[in-house]
Amino acid sequence: MTKRAVEGFSKLSKKQKIDWLAKTYFAEPDKAIALFTKYWNDDKKLQQLHDEFIENTITNYYLPLGIAPNFLINDRLYTIPMAIEESSVVAAAGKAAKFWLGKGGFHTSVVGTEKVGQVHFIYEGDPKTLAAYFESVKPQLYKDTEEITANMTKRGGGISSIELRDMTDKLPGYYQLHCTFETLDAMGANFINSCLEQCASSFESYAQQYPAFTESEKNIRVVISILSNYVPNCRVKASVSCAVEELNEDGMPAEEFVEKFIRATDIARIEPYRAVTHNKGIMNGIDAVVLATGNDFRAVEAGVHAYAAKDGRYTSLTKAWVNEGVFNFEIEIPLALGTVGGLTKLHPLVKLSLEMLGHPSAEELMQITAVAGLAQNFAAIRSLITTGIQQGHMKMHLLNILNQLRATEAEKAYFVEYFKDKTVTHRSVIETFQQLREKA
Amino acid sequence: MTKRAVEGFSKLSKKQKIDWLAKTYFAEPDKAIALFTKYWNDDKKLQQLHDEFIENTITNYYLPLGIAPNFLINDRLYTIPMAIEESSVVAAAGKAAKFWLGKGGFHTSVVGTEKVGQVHFIYEGDPKTLAAYFESVKPQLYKDTEEITANMTKRGGGISSIELRDMTDKLPGYYQLHCTFETLDAMGANFINSCLEQCASSFESYAQQYPAFTESEKNIRVVISILSNYVPNCRVKASVSCAVEELNEDGMPAEEFVEKFIRATDIARIEPYRAVTHNKGIMNGIDAVVLATGNDFRAVEAGVHAYAAKDGRYTSLTKAWVNEGVFNFEIEIPLALGTVGGLTKLHPLVKLSLEMLGHPSAEELMQITAVAGLAQNFAAIRSLITTGIQQGHMKMHLLNILNQLRATEAEKAYFVEYFKDKTVTHRSVIETFQQLREKA
Repeated sequence: MTKRAVEGFSKLSKKQKIDWLAKTYFAEPDKAIALFTKYWNDDKKLQQLHDEFIENTITNYYLPLGIAPNFLINDRLYTIPMAIEESSVVAAAGKAAKFWLGKGGFHTSVVGTEKVGQVHFIYEGDPKTLAAYFESVKPQLYKDTEEITANMTKRGGGISSIELRDMTDKLPGYYQLHCTFETLDAMGANFINSCLEQCASSFESYAQQYPAFTESEKNIRVVISILSNYVPNCRVKASVSCAVEELNEDGMPAEEFVEKFIRATDIARIEPYRAVTHNKGIMNGIDAVVLATGNDFRAVEAGVHAYAAKDGRYTSLTKAWVNEGVFNFEIEIPLALGTVGGLTKLHPLVKLSLEMLGHPSAEELMQITAVAGLAQNFAAIRSLITTGIQQGHMKMHLLNILNQLRATEAEKAYFVEYFKDKTVTHRSVIETFQQLREKA
Repeated sequence: MTKRAVEGFSKLSKKQKIDWLAKTYFAEPDKAIALFTKYWNDDKKLQQLHDEFIENTITNYYLPLGIAPNFLINDRLYTIPMAIEESSVVAAAGKAAKFWLGKGGFHTSVVGTEKVGQVHFIYEGDPKTLAAYFESVKPQLYKDTEEITANMTKRGGGISSIELRDMTDKLPGYYQLHCTFETLDAMGANFINSCLEQCASSFESYAQQYPAFTESEKNIRVVISILSNYVPNCRVKASVSCAVEELNEDGMPAEEFVEKFIRATDIARIEPYRAVTHNKGIMNGIDAVVLATGNDFRAVEAGVHAYAAKDGRYTSLTKAWVNEGVFNFEIEIPLALGTVGGLTKLHPLVKLSLEMLGHPSAEELMQITAVAGLAQNFAAIRSLITTGIQQGHMKMHLLNILNQLRATEAEKAYFVEYFKDKTVTHRSVIETFQQLREKA
């Protein structure tokens, strides 16, 4: 141990924490302190607000907040806020938006909004008695949670279902109360967890008095009560479509573009190594919106990737096909988002992001976010299969060969021009190069 | 359309972009402009640096940067930087670090550092001829990429293998060059993609001259050449262990703690709804470090969750067990991280984060990051199964019942005290309440 452990760290002031950190880990402590401080906001109250989001905050980590305009979604024009550190994601979003703007834009729909939570418990006794107990106590579970659900119920949400699930084939004595929820414009984590904890507590308590239970059967033991971030029925679709001939661009015939595009999505469908990166690109768009709107990208990521693996093999989240001369490209993903509660009311930039989007409901935000994912995937595939990447790729190949041949800068410039409209092959470059040198 | 599309947006100045945005989407444009501007850094050069990370940047999105001290990893003390907007993640990390500090700390090892990239291509001809062509051209692929790999090779990295994979049982004519790489301290995306594009180009070119190919067989068509974020062999392990009796704390006997802990991890192993949230909690810790150190969390997320689903069912990334009186808790995950290149040399706070960690190599950073994930998971499970959440949960249950009974504030205070060391059941509360009222 070259450093010493620190006691009572969380109770130190922000300044004391930074001083300790700088002294303990930095070669030039004063420089480190100055830089951490430089990232503070001049407005002390605003800075304090941000500091209090988490514990032991020492400064603000900057993620660039960019905007991608021209997204036509269900006939309405949006500018989408994106918080992301990776270059070209916002540019790709803007290009895809522009591309589809003149082709009817994006169309979206919400497939479902069901949230999930579970009470995991152990019961070692007769399953039939448990089932009977569950049926008898179920109305009481709804009743005991009424204080928690009252406001949500008033607005049309609440607990949608409570189901007893026998999981004993997987783990001895393991059962669940599998609950579904409608949380409206809230992401709902706190609401769901409160409901579940109440259900768990009531479910344990009433068992003590259930006459058909033996003494040992009364001993229901709750292991964990918690929401699930796996929300396959809180799902949204986004799509674009146009006549195949409208895709005639970048100098590539429309049929060839479409064939290559579909092949690229087919590969992502059947090959997990490709699917992971294909979906990673989608998440570049989705997470950027999730962050900018104050939602939790870890929750979204976990739910989306588990959904991509739901049929036993990890696969792509988008698909492309042609039907009667019409090209279709679609994404369907689970997205549990909120536009009220959490950071949405706290982070000033989140409030601006939501105003930029026209104060969307959670369902609207699901749709906008799915579009950002689809747009990102479209831009990536388009670039991979058309001149965008091919030109760069071919030029790079050409320059590599010329470097191997020790070509001069003047020769390189000549070749870049010469091969602009020709296919670069190793042989063709060498032959042309030799001709050029012979002439010289 | 209530708004109008905007032309040439990317060419506008930052000020013009913000003006257009404010005018088009905000009820009070001046207020919006003032707030976006308030988040700019006073240092214009520093602000420009951050603006140029992505396109159409309008301001800095603040993520709190917190620190979690007291992480003893392989006998060395670390303070871990975490960029995250979710409360209690940093606090949980700090608590878990402290907990294991006196029990030998965390132990970690790198299982492998293999990166992956693929050239996906279409070939419609005799597979045997293709295999022969591949063998003949393979040395040339290494040779043609020498300019790209020279520096990496000098330091011990480079292309590790190139393999021809026949995927035609999944898609007609579909083959791959499946390549593996060692990229040392770089995440390696650019290096890998450059190598792959060169391989793809060479592989297409030389086919033109391969005598055994028929004319149509010469027509190898590359669909996509790109790295994979699925890196099951770029993997790291982190673990903690101690004698079972050392886990006697929070008033719960050690055996009970361990039994509940293992049960909680067992449930996450067999139930995908729980596994997704279990792993989401792990990623709270991992992504916070990934962000603070300038790595790409979408890449990490995609790779980790696909790995969690690799055996056909989505499962947990940690496991707990007891062996001869010793409690063990372990995580094993794929993590492709870099400590050179990309943002690591650009973002001043990333540089500070890396200095805080003692300028780690990529392998060291993999290990530190895995520890942050394991610590987060330990803290979450511990809280879910011990008094931490039970007390809060019981108190909440008690207060709910008392609210239903329309108890006064004084009565509530009495009950919280009364039930401090008793189990709260619905009946016991009602009975005690009635006794209290009868006395009054």
